[in-house]
Amino acid sequence: MTLLPLVTAPDDCCAPGTREPMTTEAAEQLAHTLKAIADPTRLRLLSMIAAHAGGEACVCELTEPVGLSQPTISHHLKVLVEAGLLTREKRGVWAYYTVATEALSALAAVLTPR
Amino acid sequence: MTLLPLVTAPDDCCAPGTREPMTTEAAEQLAHTLKAIADPTRLRLLSMIAAHAGGEACVCELTEPVGLSQPTISHHLKVLVEAGLLTREKRGVWAYYTVATEALSALAAVLTPR
Repeated sequence: MTLLPLVTAPDDCCAPGTREPMTTEAAEQLAHTLKAIADPTRLRLLSMIAAHAGGEACVCELTEPVGLSQPTISHHLKVLVEAGLLTREKRGVWAYYTVATEALSALAAVLTPR
Repeated sequence: MTLLPLVTAPDDCCAPGTREPMTTEAAEQLAHTLKAIADPTRLRLLSMIAAHAGGEACVCELTEPVGLSQPTISHHLKVLVEAGLLTREKRGVWAYYTVATEALSALAAVLTPR
């Protein structure tokens, strides 16, 4: 069984299926992304944006259901944008957020046992 | 698009495909599991155990490649066992660890966009 195969051995060196464990650098990068979502409020924000019509939500629509102040919500959204898990677009006075499905799929794929 | 659909609406209430965002309780539980793996050393340990012959490793085999003391390694392994991501079996003087592939698959599935 191999898992978290961020680094694969070159094709010509090893038996088929042989993979190297994760490097220190890869582990640090992955831990950084996981820390961004290892927070209940940020998980709920991701989930709420994904469940929203069109997969996009305005920050103004997220404050009331989450029950925190807008600066707090904006901070959490910023962490998710910086981790590459949300994209942000300013339209008029409001910022709109969309889930970065490819980044989230890649994260899930790294965690999937093979 | 729906995501992280830990809570689905009852079949008889909503349009097909409609899902509710994650509840506070579900988000807290998931954040707890994610925190267990949001650490570079623990990610490397998981990866090393998974890459090991038979998908199992003795704590005595993990100390040297990770380059930390055995008590530190044992602490990290304990966090992963408590999160349900590793199983532990004592045989003779050593503890052996196996990746809980079903739990890890479930974690990956929750993060996969749909």
